Amino acid sequence: MTLQEQIQQKIDLKTKPYKALGQLEQVAFQIATIQQTLTPELKNPHLFVFAADHGITTEGVSAYPQEVTYQMVLNFLNGGAAINVFCTQNDIALKVIDAGVIGEFEPHDRLVIQKIGQGTANMLTEKAMTSKQLEACLDAGAVVVNEAFANGSNVVGFGEMGIGNTSSSSLMLSELFDLPIEELTGRGTGVNDEQLQSKIEILKRVQKLHQNTINSPLDILQCYGGFEVAQMVGAMNAAYKNNMLILIDGFIATAAFSIVYAMDRNSMNNAIFCHQSDEQAHGKILQKLAVESLLKLNLRVGEGTGCALAYPIIQSAVNFFNQMASFDTANVSNKD
Amino acid sequence: MTLQEQIQQKIDLKTKPYKALGQLEQVAFQIATIQQTLTPELKNPHLFVFAADHGITTEGVSAYPQEVTYQMVLNFLNGGAAINVFCTQNDIALKVIDAGVIGEFEPHDRLVIQKIGQGTANMLTEKAMTSKQLEACLDAGAVVVNEAFANGSNVVGFGEMGIGNTSSSSLMLSELFDLPIEELTGRGTGVNDEQLQSKIEILKRVQKLHQNTINSPLDILQCYGGFEVAQMVGAMNAAYKNNMLILIDGFIATAAFSIVYAMDRNSMNNAIFCHQSDEQAHGKILQKLAVESLLKLNLRVGEGTGCALAYPIIQSAVNFFNQMASFDTANVSNKD
Repeated sequence: MTLQEQIQQKIDLKTKPYKALGQLEQVAFQIATIQQTLTPELKNPHLFVFAADHGITTEGVSAYPQEVTYQMVLNFLNGGAAINVFCTQNDIALKVIDAGVIGEFEPHDRLVIQKIGQGTANMLTEKAMTSKQLEACLDAGAVVVNEAFANGSNVVGFGEMGIGNTSSSSLMLSELFDLPIEELTGRGTGVNDEQLQSKIEILKRVQKLHQNTINSPLDILQCYGGFEVAQMVGAMNAAYKNNMLILIDGFIATAAFSIVYAMDRNSMNNAIFCHQSDEQAHGKILQKLAVESLLKLNLRVGEGTGCALAYPIIQSAVNFFNQMASFDTANVSNKD
Repeated sequence: MTLQEQIQQKIDLKTKPYKALGQLEQVAFQIATIQQTLTPELKNPHLFVFAADHGITTEGVSAYPQEVTYQMVLNFLNGGAAINVFCTQNDIALKVIDAGVIGEFEPHDRLVIQKIGQGTANMLTEKAMTSKQLEACLDAGAVVVNEAFANGSNVVGFGEMGIGNTSSSSLMLSELFDLPIEELTGRGTGVNDEQLQSKIEILKRVQKLHQNTINSPLDILQCYGGFEVAQMVGAMNAAYKNNMLILIDGFIATAAFSIVYAMDRNSMNNAIFCHQSDEQAHGKILQKLAVESLLKLNLRVGEGTGCALAYPIIQSAVNFFNQMASFDTANVSNKD
């Protein structure tokens, strides 16, 4: 019997009806499989919130002013945001990465400063970042994950903060999955009907400008990505290379992962999609990726909140696999 | 400003986009409202698994033999079942109630023996229980919840174990919601196509026998209920009277709650539906009740597993409400 067969058998012999733990069984199977063991473990979970500003916000694509990125990073450092509350509750180490926020921060325990610039360029007139900046992003993203790995972590979640980054993600996903931009453009954190129409028009113009220069997933990232999105790509890729479990939050984290996936399809083995966002396009992309999220709570916060909220469920998957009795040892009659 | 308005305002001023915490906001609002406070708390959570046998199992409506009820109760006592694992993980006090399992158990810390009989009567030939038994069930169910309440608990989850109890629940819900039994009859813990057809035929015959004698929700419970289902009704009702938060697991717990709800619609204020079961009919009933579950993980275990798994999410709702910063104190700019 192969190890995969042994893992499946271990699940099937637990004292429960066949397949009755649903998605938890899939998660347990996945984690045991990537860890190549019948006794998987989740160790030293980390959550990374990458933050940066976007040149495109000057075009009015977001309901919130650009300075909210900076203010929210301060809020993360002061412990007042949703992601602080959920990470504290679930014992997840939270790190905030300044990947390119406009403004400067004082040093802080939770803060990693690896700023690539004061926000990206306006992609309505030029590529969001230079190829040098892209490379710096990928490297910097890997650094934080490799450090967590060196400290014994085998599970990392990814979130983001960046006013304007739903626009960035819509463009990336439109290109990656060959879907019209209208279908992938949502209200972000709250634009109205008129603003939504204008947002779509602007994104179409951005698309027109760049689409002929794109030949690879990394080209997409360079044209449309934010510094936080590009660092997340580097970070997720490092997590994959380290064979860590990769927890993916909402729409923007899914866009980042889609780049990693486009470069290496096996990265999917390590990914758990934690929450299907209320952002309409997210469900469409998850369908394209043929995955189902663990949670659907109509959140549209970002910050990695979906990962932090799903973490106890992922722990439950590992726990049932390791701790439940089996039909034989518990003397419970199985189905005929 | 009324307290309800203050609760809503407290939610709306948290540092997140408007309504962006989705279902968590609804849960926070609900808990603060029933507790009539701006600082709600979850105290000393309990999970009650009611277990009993069903006379109807002699007709072959279940994929598992009847003795599995007894065996699984032993498994609960030995700590080997899914619900043990999830309650331990999430610090929930687990109590197993023998409401009418065939066979006798040794005393155990986690076990409460309030057996009404050695399984119900076969409802294909008579009412599942006498009116005296029904009354005893309602009283006994209330006892365990009142004791938890006296010990400071304000949140209780409900699960069950009873081979044959999906049949019981389908019949109850068919009558309560005036839906054809075919639409409410599923595979339980795993019958095949042929067995499903036969299960439906048997349930139709049961229905024919009793339908003209039914004049109230309690009549429904007496004809079709199990001892575990009826004790759960008593327990949920006591939880409602104590103004506790009521966590409802899958299809069978929903059937029990539907009886409580049919007797007093305000009970809905205290109810949280934790998991939409893979049992096809469950989604239909939740729709009828106009509620949405927190989780949809394709579980069909029962035992209260949905409650235990959803509990950290419910804690997250209370935690964001109590702990997150607001736009003014955090100096974050709100939407224009």
